[in-house]
Amino acid sequence: MRVVVNAAISADGKLSTRERRQVDISGPADFERVDELRAESDAVMVGVGTVVADDPSLTIDGEERRERRREAGRSEQPARVVADSRIRTPSDAAVLDDTAESHLLVSETAPTDFVQQMEEEGATVITAGENRVDLPAALEQLESRGVDQLLVEGGGEIIYSLFESDLVDRLSVFVGPVVIGGRDAPTLADGDGFVDEFPALRLAEVRRIDDGVLLVYEVPDE
Amino acid sequence: MRVVVNAAISADGKLSTRERRQVDISGPADFERVDELRAESDAVMVGVGTVVADDPSLTIDGEERRERRREAGRSEQPARVVADSRIRTPSDAAVLDDTAESHLLVSETAPTDFVQQMEEEGATVITAGENRVDLPAALEQLESRGVDQLLVEGGGEIIYSLFESDLVDRLSVFVGPVVIGGRDAPTLADGDGFVDEFPALRLAEVRRIDDGVLLVYEVPDE
Repeated sequence: MRVVVNAAISADGKLSTRERRQVDISGPADFERVDELRAESDAVMVGVGTVVADDPSLTIDGEERRERRREAGRSEQPARVVADSRIRTPSDAAVLDDTAESHLLVSETAPTDFVQQMEEEGATVITAGENRVDLPAALEQLESRGVDQLLVEGGGEIIYSLFESDLVDRLSVFVGPVVIGGRDAPTLADGDGFVDEFPALRLAEVRRIDDGVLLVYEVPDE
Repeated sequence: MRVVVNAAISADGKLSTRERRQVDISGPADFERVDELRAESDAVMVGVGTVVADDPSLTIDGEERRERRREAGRSEQPARVVADSRIRTPSDAAVLDDTAESHLLVSETAPTDFVQQMEEEGATVITAGENRVDLPAALEQLESRGVDQLLVEGGGEIIYSLFESDLVDRLSVFVGPVVIGGRDAPTLADGDGFVDEFPALRLAEVRRIDDGVLLVYEVPDE
């Protein structure tokens, strides 16, 4: 499986304000780029924090892109994946609607009634890991269900966990011309943080887009 | 006074690890760029957190650059400035040594014996603000002492405070090809964080340098 992480950050590395409120970081050209990334992907994943804060749909907007997928015999929309170690996904979350398939990654601590509720909403529940979602195992299960290209759109906790597990192949970051600030504001990679053996990246592309800059990194195998 | 902020961050916006330990983010070409920035400046400022964590000297390394200053009738080294609201500057800090002038910015809460000790170490103590250093007033005092170009090298608290007070004219950021991660790791702009009226930047330059990228922003007047 190829894992592509994409996010938009402020010049100081923030995904949103300390209140987890989204800020207009990118512009229309970056929106199109992300829509295309989604169209190339079998599934689009976020952490449950992003679902709770932003309630994204994670679907392709462009009609042409959806038609291209249909013509190629693919589903019109990529599947949505939520990594939810804390069983916080609301049953009315947009990622659970009928627009596309939905997968919920949970750990063994997820109560049966929560799993049942999510399945009633149409989601496929994938259990991996004792107390937290075991991402390598969960992604393997996703791959066995046909997800070869996975796009991850945040937040900082899931992105950190993916780097921690050596699961990221490519990282694209739009850096917008704004300062958000805040020692408690979510950043591109949160979690506990590395103290040694920092993941090294290879800068593959630098491109001005909208009023900011797109940085694309490949993550070399260890 | 012209205020230039310069820092090196990881791809996820961090200045150092959650333990405040520095990581090799930039390379030799960026080191030369920063040395040149120092040579162009009348003073180089950091917050006291940076002094405690890294004990930097903030001096120009290149002999040619120092000679150029001497020939222009300037001091060989720019002055060092520490913003120290919490009177934490150790008396053996490198920024207090004899290599260059030192200024300490404190608030009115700074005890007389601390001020005396700093003055004994050769520092000029500038008092501005009741409980915290009043940066606009302190920078005005610095300007009246001949500091027309001030380079600020971090950390995230002082950089945030400067943006909060509309004091930043230019921001240059070297983004290195590494992930540090950590919800508690210092970022380029910490502080409380903005929740509205985010400082807008204008991307003036994008340049690949070492294995990373240099982003230079101008900060338009409000």
